[in-house]
Amino acid sequence: MKFKIAILGAGNVAWHLAPALEDAGHEITEIYARDLEKAQEITERVYSAEPKDDLDFSESKAQIFILAVKDSAIPEVADSVILPENSILVHTSGTMSLDILGYSSASYTGIFYPLQSFTKGKKIELDEVPFLLEAEDEETLQKLKKLAKSLSPLVYTVRSKDRKAVHIAAVFASNFTNHMIRIAEEIMRRQGLDFEMLKPLIIETISKSLQLGAKKAQTGPAIREDYETLEDHHRFLNYNEQVAEIYRLVSQDIIDS
Amino acid sequence: MKFKIAILGAGNVAWHLAPALEDAGHEITEIYARDLEKAQEITERVYSAEPKDDLDFSESKAQIFILAVKDSAIPEVADSVILPENSILVHTSGTMSLDILGYSSASYTGIFYPLQSFTKGKKIELDEVPFLLEAEDEETLQKLKKLAKSLSPLVYTVRSKDRKAVHIAAVFASNFTNHMIRIAEEIMRRQGLDFEMLKPLIIETISKSLQLGAKKAQTGPAIREDYETLEDHHRFLNYNEQVAEIYRLVSQDIIDS
Repeated sequence: MKFKIAILGAGNVAWHLAPALEDAGHEITEIYARDLEKAQEITERVYSAEPKDDLDFSESKAQIFILAVKDSAIPEVADSVILPENSILVHTSGTMSLDILGYSSASYTGIFYPLQSFTKGKKIELDEVPFLLEAEDEETLQKLKKLAKSLSPLVYTVRSKDRKAVHIAAVFASNFTNHMIRIAEEIMRRQGLDFEMLKPLIIETISKSLQLGAKKAQTGPAIREDYETLEDHHRFLNYNEQVAEIYRLVSQDIIDS
Repeated sequence: MKFKIAILGAGNVAWHLAPALEDAGHEITEIYARDLEKAQEITERVYSAEPKDDLDFSESKAQIFILAVKDSAIPEVADSVILPENSILVHTSGTMSLDILGYSSASYTGIFYPLQSFTKGKKIELDEVPFLLEAEDEETLQKLKKLAKSLSPLVYTVRSKDRKAVHIAAVFASNFTNHMIRIAEEIMRRQGLDFEMLKPLIIETISKSLQLGAKKAQTGPAIREDYETLEDHHRFLNYNEQVAEIYRLVSQDIIDS
């Protein structure tokens, strides 16, 4: 099943989605951005989409409208966009509920959330990206499933409540793992040491964690309940109270779990 | 420069080091373990090393003795081993100081610390492992450098004080990143969700973090100072006070740094 699709937004998600949807056989009809040049950045990546800087889509041939703007802009764009009859409007956010599209002129609404961290210019294989879907009615959900499966085999139907849990888990698995690496960078820099020497360890740790599960993969002073080393490390970190407290708390949680 | 080497210990480090040293052209003379069968597990991985369960090495032809036992066993083995004249004794620990070998019968002492997380049976390319070296005298240090460089190009001379900083950084970069993944696993499991859907995000996060540096790579509600989402997530985590507190503290540290 091939769809005609318009994308509202010209950020990282649009940058990745537009050409991938086209490669999967769908037709990109329009790209909207408040700034026409931004829209053109994306239309240049596909065969023949029209760039737009107004939200009147009453004449559009698209069946599915993908709202890929930042979270805070979703209500405004959803409320303002003029859609043709029988159109489906979806947003791509991991945090926003489905209700937020309730005031739009769309006949059907849904969520089409690619669970990945996108950066413009850094290519991501979309067929390795999980898509988390939600819709109010079964027919819309089936269409979104077909659309998602044309991009990736990793397609999940997830209710808004569960999507919140996924997002919180993602904060730990992504933002917080990244911040632990950031603290490690700082400790090395402060001591004049080359951070490069930690990279092979980080790569092996993550590989082991995903292979064995994080519980089995755990090593280090906390899991060994080596209180002498924990005390010594905590003292070393005294120059930064907050980081010392993170050390204490995460170590305690490793011991407890 | 090729060395004759004895390894004291039959754990993960010995399992990896013994064949790699032999492949690099050195000769493994003996493997010691308290339990002879354990020693044989390692001697079977090399050409012709003798398994031993006693610490009398007075007749050994080895020039370098690598002490690869767990930290808590280092003093006992170092104090008890009987070494030939002019021998170098090194330990492979990231946490123990050089002094700990001070009561041994070795003529020279040093540290030969492979900064990696080893698991028996999971092959690691040693030429991607950084070796952190220390020795009391320059001649010994030069020998250890030659030995390490025969295994890996990543060879660093690191004083005990700095090695402690490296170890603390490694706790954040390895043990704590792993624990963040563990918490994510728990959140998903509690909600009956498939942890698999987070794996592509984790892999991309780490790839980006090591490529761009963790500061630039950071995303999520904390760096955006999205206090509404932070508050909402914190409330969701109320069922586990300690995890909620980790969420609060790490988010605050992301905001502050």
